[in-house]
Amino acid sequence: MNIAIDVMGGDKGSFELIKGALSASAKGGFKVTLFGNEDEIREAVAQLDINADYEIRDCKQVISMCDNPLCVIKDKKASSMAMALSAAASGECDAVVSTGNSGALITGATFIVKRIAGVKRPAFAPVLPSASGAVMLLDAGANVEVRPEFLYQFGKMGSVYMEKVLGKKDPRVGLISNGKEEQKGTDLTKEARALMEKADYNFIGYIEGNDIMTGGCDVAVTDGYTGNVLLKSVEGMGKLVSAKVKVMLTGNILRKIGALFMLKGIKTFKKEFDAKQYGGAMILGARVPVIKAHGSADSGPFETAVMQAAKAAGEGICDTIAAAFSSETAEEK
Amino acid sequence: MNIAIDVMGGDKGSFELIKGALSASAKGGFKVTLFGNEDEIREAVAQLDINADYEIRDCKQVISMCDNPLCVIKDKKASSMAMALSAAASGECDAVVSTGNSGALITGATFIVKRIAGVKRPAFAPVLPSASGAVMLLDAGANVEVRPEFLYQFGKMGSVYMEKVLGKKDPRVGLISNGKEEQKGTDLTKEARALMEKADYNFIGYIEGNDIMTGGCDVAVTDGYTGNVLLKSVEGMGKLVSAKVKVMLTGNILRKIGALFMLKGIKTFKKEFDAKQYGGAMILGARVPVIKAHGSADSGPFETAVMQAAKAAGEGICDTIAAAFSSETAEEK
Repeated sequence: MNIAIDVMGGDKGSFELIKGALSASAKGGFKVTLFGNEDEIREAVAQLDINADYEIRDCKQVISMCDNPLCVIKDKKASSMAMALSAAASGECDAVVSTGNSGALITGATFIVKRIAGVKRPAFAPVLPSASGAVMLLDAGANVEVRPEFLYQFGKMGSVYMEKVLGKKDPRVGLISNGKEEQKGTDLTKEARALMEKADYNFIGYIEGNDIMTGGCDVAVTDGYTGNVLLKSVEGMGKLVSAKVKVMLTGNILRKIGALFMLKGIKTFKKEFDAKQYGGAMILGARVPVIKAHGSADSGPFETAVMQAAKAAGEGICDTIAAAFSSETAEEK
Repeated sequence: MNIAIDVMGGDKGSFELIKGALSASAKGGFKVTLFGNEDEIREAVAQLDINADYEIRDCKQVISMCDNPLCVIKDKKASSMAMALSAAASGECDAVVSTGNSGALITGATFIVKRIAGVKRPAFAPVLPSASGAVMLLDAGANVEVRPEFLYQFGKMGSVYMEKVLGKKDPRVGLISNGKEEQKGTDLTKEARALMEKADYNFIGYIEGNDIMTGGCDVAVTDGYTGNVLLKSVEGMGKLVSAKVKVMLTGNILRKIGALFMLKGIKTFKKEFDAKQYGGAMILGARVPVIKAHGSADSGPFETAVMQAAKAAGEGICDTIAAAFSSETAEEK
């Protein structure tokens, strides 16, 4: 197993990402190939002194957050991201992890790694905390305009992922709408619902916004526009809550004393709501697992994302999705 | 001033709503007209013994959460909700408050109370907590399919409300999208953005989900489908957080002791995230203020919603919106 790591483009700098990748390699017993500025990588590796199985690929370009997503297949083919994706496309690497520009990573996953046969559109699929453990939201931003059959397929891919990688038996797949009743929703959701009712996965019908994080489903399906707004709104709510919890726990000296009685509880609470602890967002539908780690990830969360990539590759998630879609490809032919 | 109160249809029963309404009347010095089952109301009033200015209107029908929204103008014209709306339409009452079926209330606000001249669609507009105090989200569910000019108008109505009723100077109006850059968004948001850039209110461009509750805007504009999903998702996140905060504070005996040091902080925290404390959601665009109070409101939050209705009526919010839209009506002619 060999995981391609794009060490450039993170908010915290390449050192933290290299540290996370080497540490994952040492713990997981797999190889990591580090794509980025060779001098920077060599220096970090020497300083870290971790007994990992690694290789370095010098890349002359970096994709920034401001770059146009298409640059990954046009004028930045020599970037760490494009080269990591190419290594996965050629079969040299088994998965890709990057903290960089999401749009570019989705574009690269689609056009460099390429789609699984039968998959119409790859989806951006983060895993969020929920009262029943975890919920996969897709699409959270790869496809702003979608067709009903894309939503049907998102449900299929999400179901396979939650079952194979996160061990959820017969995952409940819900279609996000503005109400549970059949007459609710848009023309898009109504058509998608009709398709999903005939699906071979556990479709539970429309779900509402509040069902997502309160444990009402395991896979929440929507278009990339709604999913992106939803994901960021929930993140914003999380930030607001964190700030208010801090005031509650440390607003004056008495409260600070009280907080000493619950240090472990506070730590658990923080961890449960730290988006970075849930690893990265999968780009589901590409031929090889491609994972977008959080832009602000430091070594710990990045290590989690690399481990997640290794697990997805080890479980053969893309082969399983390909098998699930083979009947659809056959139908098309 | 006379506020029409629909006392039927709340999760907690009519007693709590009557209590909240009478208490608001006593404190605010305005009259309340209570629409519902007369016997139930008389009994509650006698038991409560609050020195309020009130009148009772016996209504033979009740609209339930399962009723078709159109019933308010069809076969349930004798319901407490329809009669309260009719009293506002005739000029007898100056505002309406109900905890009942949102769809029916929006339908009634549109077809019984009727729209302000020039307003194409009324919007469902709750006020949410935000790091900068409060943010109005509209539309949160009245119009699933919208046109760009509706979004432009939602911004205008929200801006007037935040300035007149909540005292926010020159409110920042943002259009919800999946990214800040101009090339982001759907065809709908792109066209709406172009219209809003020429608006006479303080349009700040696209905002993302995380800007809404972290204080990035005072008015967040979107279509009723996205707004509804967003509102409920944030509520779901709130529920999940509350459950986890409870474990952090009371998960074992040590933590419970610690919590004693921060009782006031805990109370403040709870209050800040209790949707009910923010009064109700305005149905903006009707000729008279119509407020949807939270279905699970008990007397305290319902009192807040009635106070909010009195304030909106007292500030002449609907006249101000009408004046703001008079130029648009003129243009159309």
